[in-house]
Amino acid sequence: MRIGIIGCGQLARMMALAGIPLGLKFSFVADGGPDTDLSCVEGLGPVVPWQPGQSVSELYKALGQPDVITVEKEQVDLDLVRALEAHCTIRPNVDSIAKCKSRIHEKQLLAQLDIPCAPFTYDVSLEESAKTLGYPMVIKSLDEGYDGKNQWVVRSDEDLAKVSPELKAGHYLAEQWIPFDAEVSIIGVRSASGEVSCYPLTENQHQNGILVRSMAPARGLSAEMMQQAQTYMTKLLEAQQYVGVLVMELFVVGDKLLVNELAPRVHNSGHWTQLGAQTCQFENHIRAVAGLALGATSAIGKTGMLNLLGVAAPPMDALSANASLHWYNKAAKPNRKLGHINFMMDDYGQLASQMQSVEQSLVKC
Amino acid sequence: MRIGIIGCGQLARMMALAGIPLGLKFSFVADGGPDTDLSCVEGLGPVVPWQPGQSVSELYKALGQPDVITVEKEQVDLDLVRALEAHCTIRPNVDSIAKCKSRIHEKQLLAQLDIPCAPFTYDVSLEESAKTLGYPMVIKSLDEGYDGKNQWVVRSDEDLAKVSPELKAGHYLAEQWIPFDAEVSIIGVRSASGEVSCYPLTENQHQNGILVRSMAPARGLSAEMMQQAQTYMTKLLEAQQYVGVLVMELFVVGDKLLVNELAPRVHNSGHWTQLGAQTCQFENHIRAVAGLALGATSAIGKTGMLNLLGVAAPPMDALSANASLHWYNKAAKPNRKLGHINFMMDDYGQLASQMQSVEQSLVKC
Repeated sequence: MRIGIIGCGQLARMMALAGIPLGLKFSFVADGGPDTDLSCVEGLGPVVPWQPGQSVSELYKALGQPDVITVEKEQVDLDLVRALEAHCTIRPNVDSIAKCKSRIHEKQLLAQLDIPCAPFTYDVSLEESAKTLGYPMVIKSLDEGYDGKNQWVVRSDEDLAKVSPELKAGHYLAEQWIPFDAEVSIIGVRSASGEVSCYPLTENQHQNGILVRSMAPARGLSAEMMQQAQTYMTKLLEAQQYVGVLVMELFVVGDKLLVNELAPRVHNSGHWTQLGAQTCQFENHIRAVAGLALGATSAIGKTGMLNLLGVAAPPMDALSANASLHWYNKAAKPNRKLGHINFMMDDYGQLASQMQSVEQSLVKC
Repeated sequence: MRIGIIGCGQLARMMALAGIPLGLKFSFVADGGPDTDLSCVEGLGPVVPWQPGQSVSELYKALGQPDVITVEKEQVDLDLVRALEAHCTIRPNVDSIAKCKSRIHEKQLLAQLDIPCAPFTYDVSLEESAKTLGYPMVIKSLDEGYDGKNQWVVRSDEDLAKVSPELKAGHYLAEQWIPFDAEVSIIGVRSASGEVSCYPLTENQHQNGILVRSMAPARGLSAEMMQQAQTYMTKLLEAQQYVGVLVMELFVVGDKLLVNELAPRVHNSGHWTQLGAQTCQFENHIRAVAGLALGATSAIGKTGMLNLLGVAAPPMDALSANASLHWYNKAAKPNRKLGHINFMMDDYGQLASQMQSVEQSLVKC
């Protein structure tokens, strides 16, 4: 069986590395233009460049006629994915990818399923939005939203006046700014036969919109809140007839959970599952899209994940009995995600202190 | 960093798949002649064919000048390994590989370190051996010994008379046949800095000399016996200044352990560590030979491993929440090791019964 992946980054790399042991073959669509760094997936299967306007049939043939195609990102050309659907199964389905690609469609999906998220306005003027939501509010582009990109916080009328006058109603989304207590995420997976499984919640720390650290299972959440997150996830997976891994980022506000955003794919906040769960998110996504039974999603310990952002070279000295490294082979650039380290320990305090000490030892480029 | 592996089979495959996430590169020496099946390592790095008489410098260059070279088997051309040593570090060291390649050198090493093994004779006539050891005894070639190959059980004078008269004293080893209670193995690993770690003992079941099933941690052994096995392993690793994974197969006879044989490499009886240990044997071997810190070798559950011998196609239906598959991509042949399934469960009885039911469902070629 051959699986095609749209995208050639670290998520594609780790999906392929998790699927190769199962005897599966992989091919990759390089849709990022001629300057895309392909080193993540080098050697893991054919890589086929593709640009809008090129033949999709030729692409499908060059990929080795995969049985199923999946994505490592929501920022894909939906016309490409729809055209590929004429050749093979797309998992998750195109509608799910499309909804997560667009911030407004994502919000509308959540609203339709009664899953709480931050209050928002759409298709009204900035002034109207400010009146409805109050300050601070967050202006977000409708798509190209990940790693905190394309969003601006507006804290006052002065800020509002500075927002580009080119932003027209219907071309952006305004959201109430949520003073959250913590950021968590839940990774769920649904098999082709409808089996649903969720990993324990992950606690995430971001800097400048980029994930820096995760700890799992997340601390300080009541059983009700954990159940709530699973209920939301299951509702989404089932409503969308979704197949594969879906990730939901949530704000913790008191004893409430508000959905921040969805990702129709494996996710940085699930990297801890490589060391800390019985089956990692990558293997489970591949098992799901390949039509296989899922692996158990239970945690086998307390795990921390540290992103290696702009780290000049693989920090081999950080390896220890309870730490394992994933290095993506990408060219080093400041703030770029170049790898991550997973740590496992019984005690959260010691885990955090080991992570901090490794973090301080990293040499940035 | 680049690691060269002599051999292109499933062990080379799984070592590479465990090392690629660390950002390491791999190359493979195809030393098995032109008909060797290379599909296990296809795509995982350059594969360079080599035959005795060919230039070792050219080979080393074609491998991409690896920083360190390791082996997936003891049946290697020792002249090749010694010649490669002029170019880079060999781990484990050549002397350790050489000792494990020869049944008599292995026995002599064990005797020298006071590690008990079955009584044996060497360099005496068959009749003399029978007198010393009694029947049954096992005649073994001096090398090419793995998967029960090149050994014959002699149960009587009549059997003895049938043994090839070409077998000359000094060209074989005779061993007392051991009526064991169980077969177990211990997987140990030593880092370049001298750190030693052992996995819990594994219980192994063979058929026709080929491993069929493993369960770990092994049942029914006293704490003293487990300690004993670790002591033997540590003694061997330290005496040989060994770097990498070393495996010791042992007979359990009452409350005693007798070493059956050694393997200077990752081993089929350690495949369970991919699902059931915090760090698998493959990653730890690679961490050791790459000069990195070892990962923890503790078990995270009760694990069973089922070899897929001569199974016609990957048994995808055998996957379940607690089962994961490794398929080697080799051409199917009767009795050939084509893959394995790891199972994890709290209860040994249920584990055995799940394994039995999967085993019965396998379609052989």
